Amino acid sequence: MKSILIQLDTDPLPSSFDRVVAVDAGVDEIFSYGGVTPENVEPLVHGAMFTRGVKDLMHTAIFIGGSIAGDGEALLERVRKTFFGPIRVSVMMDSNGSNTTASAAVLAAAKHVPLEGAEAVVLGGTGPVGQRAAQLLAKQGAAVRVGSRTSDRAAQTCDAIQRAVPGARLTPVVTGDEESLRSAVQGVAVVIAAGAAGAQLLSVGFRRQIDSLKVAIDLNAVPPAGLEGIEAVDKAVERDGTICYGAIGVGGSKMGIHKACLQRLFTANDVVLDTEAIFAVGQDVTR
Amino acid sequence: MKSILIQLDTDPLPSSFDRVVAVDAGVDEIFSYGGVTPENVEPLVHGAMFTRGVKDLMHTAIFIGGSIAGDGEALLERVRKTFFGPIRVSVMMDSNGSNTTASAAVLAAAKHVPLEGAEAVVLGGTGPVGQRAAQLLAKQGAAVRVGSRTSDRAAQTCDAIQRAVPGARLTPVVTGDEESLRSAVQGVAVVIAAGAAGAQLLSVGFRRQIDSLKVAIDLNAVPPAGLEGIEAVDKAVERDGTICYGAIGVGGSKMGIHKACLQRLFTANDVVLDTEAIFAVGQDVTR
Amino acid sequence: MKSILIQLDTDPLPSSFDRVVAVDAGVDEIFSYGGVTPENVEPLVHGAMFTRGVKDLMHTAIFIGGSIAGDGEALLERVRKTFFGPIRVSVMMDSNGSNTTASAAVLAAAKHVPLEGAEAVVLGGTGPVGQRAAQLLAKQGAAVRVGSRTSDRAAQTCDAIQRAVPGARLTPVVTGDEESLRSAVQGVAVVIAAGAAGAQLLSVGFRRQIDSLKVAIDLNAVPPAGLEGIEAVDKAVERDGTICYGAIGVGGSKMGIHKACLQRLFTANDVVLDTEAIFAVGQDVTR
Repeated sequence: MKSILIQLDTDPLPSSFDRVVAVDAGVDEIFSYGGVTPENVEPLVHGAMFTRGVKDLMHTAIFIGGSIAGDGEALLERVRKTFFGPIRVSVMMDSNGSNTTASAAVLAAAKHVPLEGAEAVVLGGTGPVGQRAAQLLAKQGAAVRVGSRTSDRAAQTCDAIQRAVPGARLTPVVTGDEESLRSAVQGVAVVIAAGAAGAQLLSVGFRRQIDSLKVAIDLNAVPPAGLEGIEAVDKAVERDGTICYGAIGVGGSKMGIHKACLQRLFTANDVVLDTEAIFAVGQDVTR
Repeated sequence: MKSILIQLDTDPLPSSFDRVVAVDAGVDEIFSYGGVTPENVEPLVHGAMFTRGVKDLMHTAIFIGGSIAGDGEALLERVRKTFFGPIRVSVMMDSNGSNTTASAAVLAAAKHVPLEGAEAVVLGGTGPVGQRAAQLLAKQGAAVRVGSRTSDRAAQTCDAIQRAVPGARLTPVVTGDEESLRSAVQGVAVVIAAGAAGAQLLSVGFRRQIDSLKVAIDLNAVPPAGLEGIEAVDKAVERDGTICYGAIGVGGSKMGIHKACLQRLFTANDVVLDTEAIFAVGQDVTR
Repeated sequence: MKSILIQLDTDPLPSSFDRVVAVDAGVDEIFSYGGVTPENVEPLVHGAMFTRGVKDLMHTAIFIGGSIAGDGEALLERVRKTFFGPIRVSVMMDSNGSNTTASAAVLAAAKHVPLEGAEAVVLGGTGPVGQRAAQLLAKQGAAVRVGSRTSDRAAQTCDAIQRAVPGARLTPVVTGDEESLRSAVQGVAVVIAAGAAGAQLLSVGFRRQIDSLKVAIDLNAVPPAGLEGIEAVDKAVERDGTICYGAIGVGGSKMGIHKACLQRLFTANDVVLDTEAIFAVGQDVTR
């Protein structure tokens, strides 16, 4: 029986990136839909549920993507509500690569620093990748500072993560001016930059002043770098005593996690891969 | 040469159900188009007609689907008009599963009652599935009562079936109130319920009073049942002396017919599978 | 590693013709997108560029199609600008079959007449196929008359070709009335008719008066013929001492060129197949 991945994309044109990865992960057939919303998704989910016997439903799965992570989350919720009893298929949500990218970044950090009890800061921590990276760091036991230009957004993000990870140690930090940025990065072992493309978040000079810094990861692929002086291709490159990663440097790991997750979908008919489950698959892959 | 099925769907997002079935029927490549209308279909049909030599056109076929059967019929007519001479491909029309579902229901009834000369009633007989079930019953020689809440619609449906099946024995019956319903089901051997989801058409008490009843088939998959007391999974279950089928109970047969029809498309380049031809394939499959 | 062709179509529903040809050319996976514009194409190109390692990018390629050649050209330009360094994939542009059809026509003519120094006229020479046929004839060294009903459009097309083929010998000719048509075809060895469907461009009587005529090619598949007296299926048929081809007669060669081009895309990651490169592939195929 052929494996079928139903790609539900919230953008008008479904991601070619996600389709290529699905082909390379060995999926037999990919059905790609664009412009999918909570309102029009039900018949597509029914088509997955009612076409194969329960024992064969593990060969059909759903992938949710698109450029806006919030839309993907709303779609995931609606898809899961459409299932009932054993009549369900596995589903993965990775809008804009947010979950696989955040997982790859946190796994890269974990190679060099024990995260339990570590001090970490996520710059651009309120975006889809940043928030997920902060959540995963917190879940691993790090004390996480969530950085944003405005204190309101940083606080909201901390609240959202707190609900997902009870017991998480989170601090909203403002990074708008030099003074506040200096205090935000003071004493951290890990910095992850997940800001908007083309926005520099930390200068070389500033970074060198963080004596405690062990790992610096910049997830921005478009110049200028979010963390000045880090190259996109950096992969565990030592710069000024700090292990550095760029976006392409973590890209291989991200891709491996993405493919492993797709394969995991087809091992049962009730797998749900969102932020923490995707990270767990990543831990298996990199172990 | 690979088999190609061009799925022309009248809904904006082409049915994932029909795509999964096509994969499982062994079709090599499925091209899925949504939002297809008589106005924009011609280039898609030309692409089927003009890309392979006449002797190879049997490896390309067209499937017409979507939630509205009338739209599918209009599309089928336009597709057939686009063909000329031997430059044509096989085509199947099964909007909303109407033809395969009606065929499976009538074939289930035929297992237990000789349809030639039988008295039958189709409740909800004016919808896409009901009208097709009535047509197939009439074609097999049954005297068919077509039930509707309004006499006008019942009469119109009978007229339409009469045009498709000259010599058909059809009676429009109104089922709006208890009195008329009692007379509508009086003396029938077969009842098929094809009403809207969630509308009960016949109570258990009422059904038990039909002494002549041999087979009762409910095509409604969403509770409450159209025929009270019949379970969706019933498959030739005897209840009060009547053989009962629910929507899931005929679903396996429906699926088998759907797949057999898809395979039939690729045996020649001029197969046209609409209501009666799909039923004929069903007869072969269940023989 | 599976070969992937990303079909970017400027029409709302991507061409089924181009998809069937891609299947028959042996491409493993085809991603079909409709409604693609220079404004929304970038993420689709990025998905091709960033999903496979540089040495594997030769297994991903882009095909640009649609009914309007100008839209396809604008899309090709945007796609090429999105690539950078070695991070690119091969791309072919053949909107409305314009490049493969023009190539097949000119290759058919070249079988019977040495094009270097030949006198040729393209009737309907300002449309997408006509302009490309004129360009290819000029590139092969023919003196080409570009025919149109209005002198302005003929002159504009000559200017455009001149920019693409420096040194081309081109003459705009008007074909609106009998007098001007007579002078337009006077002394030519090759006539290619590439006008709109159903418009006769040259009568039999007129054609017989061209003593110098060696090859006449009519690319119109819908009756009446553009060149009266030529049948669509003509393939090197001699009529009144002239070798004649109809649209279907050059269709086999066009199809062979189209498939060979698709296969060529997957031999490297930097192949660009537009008018002249497609003609060059055609020369290899028919050699």
